[in-house]
Amino acid sequence: MEVQQLLEAGLLVDNGLAKSDGGRRSSLLSIPRSAGVIAAVDLGATSIEVALTKLGGEILVCRSEPADIKDGPKPILRRAKALLAELLDEQPAGPRDVLAIGMGVPGPVEQAAGILRSPPIMPGWDRFPIRGAFAGDYAAPVFIDNDVNLMALGEHRGGVGRGVDNMLFVKVGTGIGGGIIADGHLYRGTHGCAGDIGHISVDPDGPICTCGNSGCLEAMAAAPAIVLEAERRAREGLSTVLAKKLEECGEFDARDVGEAAMVGDYEALDIIRGSGRLIGSVLASLVSVLNPSLIVIGGGVAQIGHSFLAEIRSTVYQRSLPLATRNLPIVLSELEETAGVTGASVIAAEGVLSVPE
Amino acid sequence: MEVQQLLEAGLLVDNGLAKSDGGRRSSLLSIPRSAGVIAAVDLGATSIEVALTKLGGEILVCRSEPADIKDGPKPILRRAKALLAELLDEQPAGPRDVLAIGMGVPGPVEQAAGILRSPPIMPGWDRFPIRGAFAGDYAAPVFIDNDVNLMALGEHRGGVGRGVDNMLFVKVGTGIGGGIIADGHLYRGTHGCAGDIGHISVDPDGPICTCGNSGCLEAMAAAPAIVLEAERRAREGLSTVLAKKLEECGEFDARDVGEAAMVGDYEALDIIRGSGRLIGSVLASLVSVLNPSLIVIGGGVAQIGHSFLAEIRSTVYQRSLPLATRNLPIVLSELEETAGVTGASVIAAEGVLSVPE
Repeated sequence: MEVQQLLEAGLLVDNGLAKSDGGRRSSLLSIPRSAGVIAAVDLGATSIEVALTKLGGEILVCRSEPADIKDGPKPILRRAKALLAELLDEQPAGPRDVLAIGMGVPGPVEQAAGILRSPPIMPGWDRFPIRGAFAGDYAAPVFIDNDVNLMALGEHRGGVGRGVDNMLFVKVGTGIGGGIIADGHLYRGTHGCAGDIGHISVDPDGPICTCGNSGCLEAMAAAPAIVLEAERRAREGLSTVLAKKLEECGEFDARDVGEAAMVGDYEALDIIRGSGRLIGSVLASLVSVLNPSLIVIGGGVAQIGHSFLAEIRSTVYQRSLPLATRNLPIVLSELEETAGVTGASVIAAEGVLSVPE
Repeated sequence: MEVQQLLEAGLLVDNGLAKSDGGRRSSLLSIPRSAGVIAAVDLGATSIEVALTKLGGEILVCRSEPADIKDGPKPILRRAKALLAELLDEQPAGPRDVLAIGMGVPGPVEQAAGILRSPPIMPGWDRFPIRGAFAGDYAAPVFIDNDVNLMALGEHRGGVGRGVDNMLFVKVGTGIGGGIIADGHLYRGTHGCAGDIGHISVDPDGPICTCGNSGCLEAMAAAPAIVLEAERRAREGLSTVLAKKLEECGEFDARDVGEAAMVGDYEALDIIRGSGRLIGSVLASLVSVLNPSLIVIGGGVAQIGHSFLAEIRSTVYQRSLPLATRNLPIVLSELEETAGVTGASVIAAEGVLSVPE
């Protein structure tokens, strides 16, 4: 749409002229709240996050709760819709104020149809008509993409990757995935599964992964592998810190291992560094392939402590060619949990305005 | 430019209306020889290839000769210009008939400036003003890019990759490099060194590479590694076929090893399969990252025999996730030696017509 059309439709307001910097004075345009809102939904493997945002991506309100994506599409989408209705009620606003709905899902998405194709960790979701689930309540169009793609896009548009044309986003949590910004655009690949770096083999003799291959990065460096290894070392009495923690908690999550490392436990630190080194070795390859100018690390494990990021950095810088790593910052996500809904808001807003992102 | 402008400039001719297929009859446009020619130069590590092409990429005449890029820019560019002058003389045509010059070089290129930056195998070429070398003789603009990028572009526009939006081209010769077509465009990365897959580590305990790291793909699977291993096995008497061949030739090239494999020599076959397996393992990772719909294998070693391609294929199909490899052909280059000059012609033609490729 042209700016004039947007002004006429009430999607933009003109706030008068900006101060001159010598040339022609430009108009200050902004998006009024009355233009309506974007509904952004981020379905993770173990959570639902829902937000209302302005058309420009600014988050108005956001809510999340734990959920198991394996419960299947009907109960999960029912819960997402209920959360969305709550947020709208509180505004107050209604379904007719929603201009577009953007949604991230933890699997490969066929863009045109807006359906998942053979998602490995989402039983029951294969080809499920997600858009149809909203059709009864919302007239707004629904745009769906892979969750890590949307985190990359969110970070690119509203986070630490603003203005960076070639960027790699890596999510390290229960699984490991990547999102690629190439020449300023989200690159999805042929079946929407570009950036699926969790199943790159890092050790042919490594443990069997859920995908059936052995030694996948995800099977050796994601949160479950960190936890499993920490529990083993605790039980074997290698670390009194870990053993004491395990006795208290009953079971670990990755954060517990991070805390043990931060109080100086050698075993915990060793586990975290091992994970960082494996991820770094894969990223070194990706640097050779993609020659990005920024790598952003997000997901729950990214918050585990400085030694994790430090190990990723030193491995990448050591193994990549100097030309590709000169001026290559490797940084933590700025948006953290809201990267996904920010990206979902971007595809929804651009989709409804027909702007190719 | 618009079609009408091209017609007025004599760069297009109108050959009348096409037969109707029911709708409005379309014009048959073609590019006349009188529109001028594109000069395409492909500098390899060990060769110079020069071609004259029509504006649409069709090769009019092509010539190549051995050369050592390490001789430095002055003698190499002098030779390229001499070959180009010969081809023009034979047409007959002159420098003023050259609309644009496209050139491929075996190193990372800074697009805007048209210069090489710290090219690892091109001593003396760092920041050399290549365009300036043509300025005295040609008024035509000079467009420069990495040789493997141009092979990928050539194969995408005029070879087996026509119409394929997401494609990976891999050159296996003295070195190993890749070129990436993403969403229909050549993806160069931040410093022009995207696709530099030869220096991905495949074995931390492997031999030291020219880049200083150990176990790079290139150091273990390119032509010199194949030759070295074949010579070792010949000398150690493991293969009488190889030993006899070595006695006859004095030294091997990769083709000799291919010939030995084709007559059924187990050791030669084993070496070739080993190389294919290493390349396949890296390509399996790239399939996860890029989710292409076609992989094209080119370069001298690609012609070494079917078992090489077969081993690459089986390794990729075995190690990648099924979703990414359904309908993923892995094929040999169609253009072979002319892939590079075809790509050079494409960037030159599009550069001079200001079409973003």
